[in-house]
Amino acid sequence: MSDKTVPTKIYLTENEIPRQWYNVRAAMKEKHDPFLNPATLKPCTADDLRGVFCDELIEQELNQTDEYIDIPEGIVEFYKMFRPSPMVRAYWLEKLLDTPAHIYYKFEGNNTSGSHKLNSAVAQVYYAKQQGLTHLTTETGAGQWGTALSMACAFYGLDLTVYMVKVSSEQKPHRKEVMRTYGANVVASPSDTTEVGRKILAEFPTTGGSLGCAISEAIEKAVKTENCKYVLGSVLDHVVLHQSIIGLESKAALEKYGVTPDIIIGCAGGGSNLGGLISPFMGDKLKGKNDIRFIAVEPASCPSMTRGKYVYDFGDTGKTTPLMRMYTLGCGFMPSANHAGGLRYHGMSPIVSKLYHDGYMEAVSVEQTKVFEAAEKFARCEGILPAPESAHAISVAIDEALKCKERNEKKTILFGLTGTGYFDMTAYKAYNDGTMTDYIPTDEDLQRGFASILDIPQNK
Amino acid sequence: MSDKTVPTKIYLTENEIPRQWYNVRAAMKEKHDPFLNPATLKPCTADDLRGVFCDELIEQELNQTDEYIDIPEGIVEFYKMFRPSPMVRAYWLEKLLDTPAHIYYKFEGNNTSGSHKLNSAVAQVYYAKQQGLTHLTTETGAGQWGTALSMACAFYGLDLTVYMVKVSSEQKPHRKEVMRTYGANVVASPSDTTEVGRKILAEFPTTGGSLGCAISEAIEKAVKTENCKYVLGSVLDHVVLHQSIIGLESKAALEKYGVTPDIIIGCAGGGSNLGGLISPFMGDKLKGKNDIRFIAVEPASCPSMTRGKYVYDFGDTGKTTPLMRMYTLGCGFMPSANHAGGLRYHGMSPIVSKLYHDGYMEAVSVEQTKVFEAAEKFARCEGILPAPESAHAISVAIDEALKCKERNEKKTILFGLTGTGYFDMTAYKAYNDGTMTDYIPTDEDLQRGFASILDIPQNK
Repeated sequence: MSDKTVPTKIYLTENEIPRQWYNVRAAMKEKHDPFLNPATLKPCTADDLRGVFCDELIEQELNQTDEYIDIPEGIVEFYKMFRPSPMVRAYWLEKLLDTPAHIYYKFEGNNTSGSHKLNSAVAQVYYAKQQGLTHLTTETGAGQWGTALSMACAFYGLDLTVYMVKVSSEQKPHRKEVMRTYGANVVASPSDTTEVGRKILAEFPTTGGSLGCAISEAIEKAVKTENCKYVLGSVLDHVVLHQSIIGLESKAALEKYGVTPDIIIGCAGGGSNLGGLISPFMGDKLKGKNDIRFIAVEPASCPSMTRGKYVYDFGDTGKTTPLMRMYTLGCGFMPSANHAGGLRYHGMSPIVSKLYHDGYMEAVSVEQTKVFEAAEKFARCEGILPAPESAHAISVAIDEALKCKERNEKKTILFGLTGTGYFDMTAYKAYNDGTMTDYIPTDEDLQRGFASILDIPQNK
Repeated sequence: MSDKTVPTKIYLTENEIPRQWYNVRAAMKEKHDPFLNPATLKPCTADDLRGVFCDELIEQELNQTDEYIDIPEGIVEFYKMFRPSPMVRAYWLEKLLDTPAHIYYKFEGNNTSGSHKLNSAVAQVYYAKQQGLTHLTTETGAGQWGTALSMACAFYGLDLTVYMVKVSSEQKPHRKEVMRTYGANVVASPSDTTEVGRKILAEFPTTGGSLGCAISEAIEKAVKTENCKYVLGSVLDHVVLHQSIIGLESKAALEKYGVTPDIIIGCAGGGSNLGGLISPFMGDKLKGKNDIRFIAVEPASCPSMTRGKYVYDFGDTGKTTPLMRMYTLGCGFMPSANHAGGLRYHGMSPIVSKLYHDGYMEAVSVEQTKVFEAAEKFARCEGILPAPESAHAISVAIDEALKCKERNEKKTILFGLTGTGYFDMTAYKAYNDGTMTDYIPTDEDLQRGFASILDIPQNK
């Protein structure tokens, strides 16, 4: 644990790229409640999901028992383009904060999608290709998932339609061009290309859209298109599974230098990055092998864990998905228009929700001006301009490092730096200009969200 | 040289970051002609340069004899943030082209400046800080240099004013925000903040600006500001020296796998990336140790090597710098408005110019639609969205690889992938929309450029 021996960046070799994903559900004594078919209220079967999802992904989604799942060689080959990702010791941030804490971050932004999303995109497109599909649909919020999927589709030769949350597509026109460069068809959501989109537009003509709404449109389009399935970039168990590669590499890199984290911090929108980062460490914790504190960080403007309810809800605004028991603000919740970047989903990964509900992890929320303050500080000393999403984790990592300073504790903090902010400069401009505002939903705002799911039967 | 043993990415370790830069001038039997003081037409002394440049950089600029120059530990520490940069074997591009050639690229884009420019920015700001300066000025074209310098100034705590070529600042408003996030003051050039800017605006009120013009403004500002010097991101010998780290790391990485390049290709604007990439390889060639073909690639719209003259010229439009003998289109040359991205400088590094003039390297020019075609192809198979500048090198690497295919030659091609195109999406949009145009200067256009330097005395 001596500083001296740890390099600024720990790179694993290509041969050390994990050959298996880690399935944290296998280590959970109590699994999360099953997905329910909204028509029958019975647990979803593979057949229930087959209309929307690829076969192999359904198998992974329903696999709660195998602790390790093989990564096909074809996926490993693609991973070699951008993995292993660096584990960075934040020497300069430590120095700036003058903290005795050791701070590490796993940096997932060194690829053109600019985030960890590519880890699952590659896997999902690979399996779709194996199944003989020719077309995929998806939604994207901040644009990272859409970009990642566009890259994977270009590589494997599948057509792709991306429903992009309208407010993001307006804030980030350049994201759209990246996706187009990779051959994707990008549609601002809500759109008039689907029934559900037309319905939402009729009800909320000025809405900036939401992930939940874009999901509804993408699913409808997939169901109505031949040889086409829908893929999702977060929330679901198979996505967390793919993202476990972040945690596996992190663990391997730190173990090389005998480092064991005391605190692991990740931002949480749909929960895939956080779930993936913590998976193998949490598996150990569930087996009594460590006592790591896990902290989920969410935006104060979309506080699904810290202020949401742990109930069954739909994954989308149009109420077309299976029901999932998760922390949720209600599928009708819309984040305020001033919210920048991603992390705008109404719900939370059922795995992460269950772990949080059972007390294995903590959650905090942060206001966005504080997030951008942390982002700027980090950029100036560590040299990487972070995505606003990632800066949520930075903000709390700084808070924890400063607590260590107060208490003179030499803790080891690991956080997930999920991506870069190069397509978020409109938000950075607002921060630079001093015009960025915060918005914490009122109890009334939250009640409006919860009202949208009052009709969903709860079996608990 | 077996494919099997070479990983997709070759990473050196942190300890393998070079501790010395390579000074290719020491290996050149004939040096390039000296800089001349335009007032006396005598070779510039250190004192002539002191009004504008930092002392240590002047020493490096004038050092033609030491083959290796130590990199201070303080600079190596910063390098660790983003170096060693990966050497990538372009397996997927090779497969797509179905070529027997082996293609490698040294990727300098994995840092927030998005390019190799950070290699010299760090060094220049470090020396400025050592000298006790508190303020720097510079110019930026595509924005990569300005961003790199902003990052370095934020890190070392110096104030920075960046004159950004107006057409770039309009095409890339987000670049400006990155620089602002790092605390820089960004001014669109030509501006009314300097005498030379006002003069150029009076003569060409609608000009989009040029690097040469932005340089004039930055120099004027530096000279008139207390405790302030000017720094330049390309062209000069000390910049090529700093960029030699690209070539040194490339050589070390390839040697690990017993690989020796047959062809090395780099894009050329001011020549710093190309000069740095080729430096140690060229040193060996000058000593008869290899017979590598070196190819400089420039835009057809700004063809300083392929259509320029090898004469003494000013480095800036305002005619305030020392005279340099180099390939030039004349300091009054302005690239056409439809030209996207960087590589818009009227001249060329005196080192690169001399090597080209003496027959040690080749130069070709490429039209921009062809460049973007290569960029898209590369992005889709190699997963990195390249900067337009870098895509010039990609385009010629593809041409050479296809020649290998025709002739069934298993050559090893190395090119410099200098950066990413994340801030160039306006240009990509034009390409995606099919509205991008090419412009090759007419002989008349070139004559106008050459006319601007007819009054400069030539001693050869």
